[in-house]
This record gives sequence, C-alpha cells and structure tokens, in this order.
Amino acid sequence: MRWSPDMCPCPTGGEDPYSTHNIPEDLNYELKMKDGIVYVYDNAEALRENQPHDLPYPDFETFAVDFSHVLMSRALIFRKTYCHRRLNFLSSKFYLHEMLNEIAELKELKCVPHRDFYNVRKVDTHIHAAACMSQKHLLTFIQETYKADANRVVLENAGQKITLQQVFHSLNKDPYDLTVDSLDVHAGRHTFHRFDKFNSKYNPVGASELREIFLKTDNLLDGEYFARIIKEVSHDLEESKYQHAEPRLSIYGRSPGEWHSLSKWFIQHKVHSPNMRWIIQVPRIYDIFKAKKLVPNFAKMLENIFLPLFEASVNPQNHKEIHVFLKYVSGFDSVDDESKHSDHMFSFRSPKPEQWTADENPPYSYYIFHMYANIMVLNNLRKERGLSTFQLRPHCGEAGSITHLVSGFLTSDNISHGLNLKKSPVLQYLYYLAQIPIAMSPLSNNSLFLEYSKNPLLEFLHKGLCVSLSTDDPMQFHYTKNKRHFLGVNYLKDGPEGNDIRRTNVAQIRMAYRHETLCNELSFIVDAVRSEAMSCQYE
Amino acid sequence: MRWSPDMCPCPTGGEDPYSTHNIPEDLNYELKMKDGIVYVYDNAEALRENQPHDLPYPDFETFAVDFSHVLMSRALIFRKTYCHRRLNFLSSKFYLHEMLNEIAELKELKCVPHRDFYNVRKVDTHIHAAACMSQKHLLTFIQETYKADANRVVLENAGQKITLQQVFHSLNKDPYDLTVDSLDVHAGRHTFHRFDKFNSKYNPVGASELREIFLKTDNLLDGEYFARIIKEVSHDLEESKYQHAEPRLSIYGRSPGEWHSLSKWFIQHKVHSPNMRWIIQVPRIYDIFKAKKLVPNFAKMLENIFLPLFEASVNPQNHKEIHVFLKYVSGFDSVDDESKHSDHMFSFRSPKPEQWTADENPPYSYYIFHMYANIMVLNNLRKERGLSTFQLRPHCGEAGSITHLVSGFLTSDNISHGLNLKKSPVLQYLYYLAQIPIAMSPLSNNSLFLEYSKNPLLEFLHKGLCVSLSTDDPMQFHYTKNKRHFLGVNYLKDGPEGNDIRRTNVAQIRMAYRHETLCNELSFIVDAVRSEAMSCQYE
Repeated sequence: MRWSPDMCPCPTGGEDPYSTHNIPEDLNYELKMKDGIVYVYDNAEALRENQPHDLPYPDFETFAVDFSHVLMSRALIFRKTYCHRRLNFLSSKFYLHEMLNEIAELKELKCVPHRDFYNVRKVDTHIHAAACMSQKHLLTFIQETYKADANRVVLENAGQKITLQQVFHSLNKDPYDLTVDSLDVHAGRHTFHRFDKFNSKYNPVGASELREIFLKTDNLLDGEYFARIIKEVSHDLEESKYQHAEPRLSIYGRSPGEWHSLSKWFIQHKVHSPNMRWIIQVPRIYDIFKAKKLVPNFAKMLENIFLPLFEASVNPQNHKEIHVFLKYVSGFDSVDDESKHSDHMFSFRSPKPEQWTADENPPYSYYIFHMYANIMVLNNLRKERGLSTFQLRPHCGEAGSITHLVSGFLTSDNISHGLNLKKSPVLQYLYYLAQIPIAMSPLSNNSLFLEYSKNPLLEFLHKGLCVSLSTDDPMQFHYTKNKRHFLGVNYLKDGPEGNDIRRTNVAQIRMAYRHETLCNELSFIVDAVRSEAMSCQYE
Repeated sequence: MRWSPDMCPCPTGGEDPYSTHNIPEDLNYELKMKDGIVYVYDNAEALRENQPHDLPYPDFETFAVDFSHVLMSRALIFRKTYCHRRLNFLSSKFYLHEMLNEIAELKELKCVPHRDFYNVRKVDTHIHAAACMSQKHLLTFIQETYKADANRVVLENAGQKITLQQVFHSLNKDPYDLTVDSLDVHAGRHTFHRFDKFNSKYNPVGASELREIFLKTDNLLDGEYFARIIKEVSHDLEESKYQHAEPRLSIYGRSPGEWHSLSKWFIQHKVHSPNMRWIIQVPRIYDIFKAKKLVPNFAKMLENIFLPLFEASVNPQNHKEIHVFLKYVSGFDSVDDESKHSDHMFSFRSPKPEQWTADENPPYSYYIFHMYANIMVLNNLRKERGLSTFQLRPHCGEAGSITHLVSGFLTSDNISHGLNLKKSPVLQYLYYLAQIPIAMSPLSNNSLFLEYSKNPLLEFLHKGLCVSLSTDDPMQFHYTKNKRHFLGVNYLKDGPEGNDIRRTNVAQIRMAYRHETLCNELSFIVDAVRSEAMSCQYE
C-alpha cells in the first residue's frame, strides 16, 4: 500500500527546473468526483456508462472495518501486555547490543574518511515554510525590506492602497526599533496546550497584516517577499551543502484556483532549490469555510484540493505551471490541532462527503481516509503516465485521540510527531514491525504538548522504531531519486547490504543488529500466530 | 571580603593594549613566603625585623573555625528544615509573581527599542581556552594548518626535530581524511562519572602530540597555533558584537617561570581581544608534581604560582610582560576532578604548606584557602598601587564532598557549577542570601555528572539564586570597567535603580520583585535571629 521510492522521478542537476519542454500530451479523459473520490474515465462514453478507468483504491467500508479491527485489538488487555513485553525486550536487547558493540561501532566510524556528523546528508522532513526562518532572520528581513520599500503599496483595503510605511504607522511601530521581543513570533510558556495561541504566533507583532505581507504566497505582491525569504533559507542550505528540507506550503480547498496560484508563485519567483522538496499541507478547517459559506459540503473541499491535480495529470499541456511545480512536491501533510474534539463517531455508517453538509468538522480519520484514497487513485494514474507520485505524511499522534494513530498506521508513508504512541504499546509495536517512519520534534512538543525531558524520542530510537529528528539536528533521508547519489547504489536493500558506510557514516554492526532484530521479531510473530492457529485447531 | 568591581581598571578602546608606557615604577620591597602566604616588607630592614607591610587577610585558624561552624550548622536538622521551608517559600512566591506579572513584564520588554535577547551583552563566564572552539572548528584548523605547514618542525624528541607531516605519518593518519569522529574530542556516554576519560578528550585523535602542538602555549612553536585558533574564536565574538567570554588559561605551579612564559605568549601573538578577559586556572595536581620531584612541598607550588605576581606588582618595570598581561586577567579558577577523594581531614591542625611534604594531594578546602589568602594579600597590595585586582572563582560543587561549597561560600566571588547545592538546603539558602554568583553549564554536567533533565538551574533561578548559563546561552555580566557602558551608569545600585532596561532588556517589575524579596528575606532573618536572642536572654 506504500509507494516505492523509485516511483518518484525528480529532475536532477543541470537542466532548467522550470522548463516546459517534454511535457506529456493531453488526453481526452473525463473526471468526476463521487463519494469524495475522483474517478477517471477514458472518454465521454465511459463516463456515460459509468465505467471508470481501473485505478484501484481501498473503499471506505474496507477502511472502516480495518480501522475498527486495529482499534479493538488495541483494547484487548492480553495484547497490551504482550506488546508491552516485546517492546521491553527490544529495549533491553538494544542496551545489551550497545554494551557489547559500542566500541566496535565507534571504531568503524573512525575509519571512514571524510564522513562525520557534519557531512552526512541530513533532511529536515518536517518544517513549515511560513516558519522555516529564525525569528532573528525574519526581523532582519522586515527591517531591510522596509529600508528599500517603505513607499511600496503592499496591501489594499476596500479599494484603498496602503504602503509599507502606512502599515507600520497604523501599527504605531518604527521597524528600526523592532526587536524579537516586539516581533513576538516565538512560542513560550503561554502556548503550552494552547494550539490557538501558538497559531497566532505566526502573526509578527501580533498583526495579521504583517503575516499577509511577508508570509503569504497569494497577496497583493504575488508573494514576492515570502518567496525572497524562503530563498534566503534555501541559499543557506545550499551553502552548508549537507542540509536539506521539505517545507510545507498550504492548499486549503476553499477554492479551485489555489493550485494554479501556488504553482505560478513557485515559477514566477524561481523558488526551486536543489536542497528542498515541497510538501503540501492541508489544514483540517472545513468548518471555517462552511461557516463562511465558501463550500456547501465536504466533497467540494476535497474537489478543490484534488481535482486540479487530476486535471494537471491528464492534461499537463493545459496546466503547465501545476505540472512543473508537482515535479518538486514529495507529498501531502494534514495539519491542525489534534486535541480538538470531534462529536462525530467515525464508522462505515458516516455520511459520504457529498452528504456532509453539517457545520461541524469531520473527524481526523475521515479527513485522512479521503486524502489517502484520492492520493492513491492519483498515484495510480500518474504511474501509468510515468509521472511522479506523492506520499501521505500527515501530522499524527501529536495530541488528541489515539484513533489518529490507527488511521496513520493504515494509510501513511510517514507521520509527524507520533507522541501518543507512548500511550499505546499495541500501536507502538505495530509501528515498529511495519517500520513506519516518524519525524519527531521534541523542541516543538516542548512548547505545545510535552516537556522536553519527557519526550519519548530516545526510548523509541532504542527500541528500534524508525524515528528521525526534524527541524533540529540529524535527519532521516527522504524518498527522491537523488537519494541514490547520497546513500549509495544499494540503498533500497534491507540491512547492512543497503548501507554504504562511506556515505551514511552508520556502522555496519549497527545496521546488522537492527536488521537481524527486526527479522527475528517478524518471524517470532509469524510463529506465535501459527502456533495459536494450531492450538485452536486441536482444541 | 569581596572585591568591588571598581577596583579593576581595565584599558578601554583606543589605546594599544600591549603598551609598556605608564608602567608604575619599581619599589625596593622585599617578598617572602611563610606558611604558604606571601608577605611583603617595605625594605630589607623590615624583613630582618619581621615587620611585614599591613596587607590583611584571614589567617588559617580563623578560616578553619568558620569552616567548621558552617559545616556544623549544615548538619543541624532544624536548620535543614528551616532552610528547606524558606526555599520552598521563595519558589512558590516566584510562581505567584510570574502568574500575576508575566504579561506586564513582557509588555515592558516589548517597549524597549533595539534590545532583545540577541543584542544584550552576554558573557560566557566559564569556558576553558583549550576547549573554546567547536570540534568542527578545530578539525578545519588542523587541516588548513597542515596544508600550509606540513614541513614545519613542530616537535622535538630527544634532540630529533619532527615535522607536522611526520607527526601525522607516525599516527598513521592523513589530515585530509580526518573527521570529527576520528578527532574524537567530543564527550559522550563514556565520560559520564569518568573525569579521567573526559580529560583525555583534550587529546585530538587520542594523541597527546596534537594537544601539545595545537592546544598549548609553551611548546616548540611558542604556542603559535593555539594563539591563532583562539584569535579565530575571539574574532567571531567581535563580529557578533554582543558576545563576550572569559577563557581559562593554565598556571600549574610546577616552575617559577610559567607566568613569564604565558605573558610573553599573550603579547607576542597579540592574543588580546576587547570581547575577552582571562581567568587563570590552577589545576589541583600537587601530587603529580611531587611524584615527578618537581616540587619538594606544597608551599613551593604556591610560591611558583603567586610569588611572580607579587614581584610583578612590586617591580612592574622589571616584569613588563606580566604587568601588561595582568591588566586583562579578571581572576583565578581552581580546577580538577572534585569527586576524587582526599584522605586528609581538613582542620586547623592540618600541616602548614612548608610541612606538606607528603605525596598525597591536599584536600579541596586546603587549596582554596591558600589561593584565597594569597589573592587577598595581593589585591590589597595592588589596590595600594592603583593596579587591577583579581577575583577567586573556583570550580566548586560540581561533584564530591559538600565541604567544597562551604569553602566556596567563605572565600569565593563566584563559583562554577554549584550542582551539589541541590543536596544541601542550608548551603543553598546561604548562597541565596549572600547572592553568590553561580555559573552553571547543564550541557557539561550532562556529559559528566548529572543528566540534563535533572539539572537544578531552573529551580535555582526560580528561587532567586544568582545563576548564569555558561558556555551556552544568556550570560551573567562580569566585573570590569566597560560594564558601565554596557549596563548603564547606575549598574552598581541594587534593585530596579541599578537596571537600565534600554541596555539590559530586563523588566523593572522583575528587578523590583527580586530586590524586594531579597530585602524581605534578609530582614526576616535578622528579626528571627533577634527574637531568638531575646528568648534566650529571658529563659
């Protein structure tokens, strides 16, 4: 159910990243959304006869049944005890490994010329574009922009043009006197368990005007300032050579034109960097758009998000900008405050997206399934055409119900946070067995949901869960073609075979330990299930 | 008993820092060490008649009696309970203050133009010169030096000259292939509670040759490389403008020529930086020098350390280099593994330094008293001559016996670490009342003595102890003349009066809270002692 990395052809160095040559030709396919999923028809006749192109995806009922199955097994007390013991075993085994092999591992590392922590490739797999610069960087950027552009018109209010100088005047601020204190974008004690207050930190000086001017892609300046500051960040990454990032850009689903506008921004301002790939974040805020009457039901929001992607995949000549931008998009994220409670109980009886006309927001799992299903259909379509495919990498388990982690387990290529795995040994063990990557950010958690000293990252790492550290220091590698160059030709192979220590600077001894332990655990589980089946048979 | 900061005249910008103009004239004083303390005589006759110049210091017996008094009161269970309750009260009071005034404090800060965390002066008050660069910096420095100087003679062994290339050849290393892993200077799991292993991390590639070549002041190259790398560090501080440091340089006391050699190094390589002041660290390793027969008794080691300072203070014309260097020295540190146990029980019956001929090392408190007494006499002498004075700022309470903190309390202007205050409410309360500054380094502790998450820095800060964060982020201000410029003209005044928010960016509300709380606590204690005395009187 997960996409293999070789499905994601990415342009490599040399060629013009914005080139519109060699765009595949348009097809006369027909597209139609039904039950919140886009269907593709080979032609108008197939559409009339309701014979969609064969692009498989798991239907809603299957998903809902699997979902309750995992959820139930999580609740069984003997399963809990069992998983808890296996995880403890993995922990103890690792300590033993460390005691016995630590010196040997260090020796291996010391023998690798050129490679150390500083010059292995590191990818920040979880970072939001609108917060990818430091507070000091944003401050300096605002001050320098003001020096050059004070008289430039940057906003329009009821037909009236407003210059940068007028904006600061109305805020009663002199940009020269601004400090990081008055900028006030840094999270602190006040944001702990207050996602709402955290979100408002995106507004410099507490003023949404400055966010609009400096941190948006679709404003009066066509996002010129935002593009410029992002390019300063990517310039730093390129300079340091070994650092990469996958920043999030937003698609909201409130109107069908968002993809076109975002792609135009990307190309017009030449935002591409060889050290960056882009992730599209979709905020789970249907309820806001519904209240503002921007969408009549949930299906419309899904259509605004996904239909333009199908159109660009079917008729790329007719959607050149989107086609070009998508080459650098690695996947989708689903974002918002997970601790917000939903009254709706997710099940196979939940209304279809076209019927979801209520004002309330659908629950997390409902969002994730519909993103997952559409991305799967889209990927199958794009594979057929030899185009790049996308991953689903939602925020998951940062807070709120444990059911989010069940949805993540069933659908996602990678999750961000996974903090709540702490609370469920069964899910934790499943994430271990399936080696689902988890991008963790202890410093972010520290400001929002969990004190730094209680963060489970180290514990997960010891047990062998597939964790990486994001928006901080050492990084996990992401799934693009250039990975071959950074990790060695065998990077897809499991265990030590896939590890080229001269590139990764990870000890072969460690790779062998991890691989053997996982294989043992998997065959142990198979044996256990088998013997259970046997004993049932003879009872 | 502590030195007021205005006693420390420091040259300010403009004039040549190495200038030998305006050096005071030599006096025909006589100097003589007795019982480990240097005595100053106005002339040869005063020496014959044993009438030393009046430079007061507390004698050994007084110190030993005070020492056991504090130590006893620490052991009294009702004192413990009392101090514990006062400290809890201070903690709770601060939380209350925070709840009530946090917003008002933030508001104050936001109103200060130009000042924020980035541009207030920060001083790293505890940093060792031989480790003041990052591992990556040292690595790059070694590689670049090799490129330029491979054929330079850098060592001499039994008369044989050895080039840099030969050194690396004998280590079987190509500098080009070196990585931070093979450099191996970083502390890790292996150094926890192993100060010996930590110390050996000062040897790059585990080779003492590289330490000798790159990190020493008195080698075959006259410390040229060490000076160069330190100057790269100070260049970075000067560039950043708001960062200062007080690096430690070593005086060992194994020979009388060390001060001359260190001062020559400082001047020859022009090591001075406006962003640095120097602290002299004296390692407590008499036992090593005694075993090597470099000194016959402990008094000789003290003489090697202190007599040259008295000579340079009495006859500066005759010791120009030392005189110039001392202008930039702010004080003395006492360093070594505090967890090493001493068999000797310190008391007023302990042998005098001249009688300390045993092979074993004197205990911590014995070292501290003799440094303290000599520095006090020296300061009194230098004050008379209008010369700069020195602070005593030992490593204290990082590990080992709680008695170290008693000595620190009785003698020191500032201590480094103070971790063990965690274990003694009485001492912790005394350090609070006396507001003795404590430079804390949680990241260093984490590698040696205490996990990061258990570090008491935050707890101490909440209670109102005078803590600073060293070799990491925000800093305490040190006692030099230029402080007036950075902190405002009233910086010596207590409480909000001494605070110029436009320079310090500390809220007046916070200053007022701290000052009032301390005054209340002090008068509370005075009242308590008085009423105790009254009740005794009438009993």
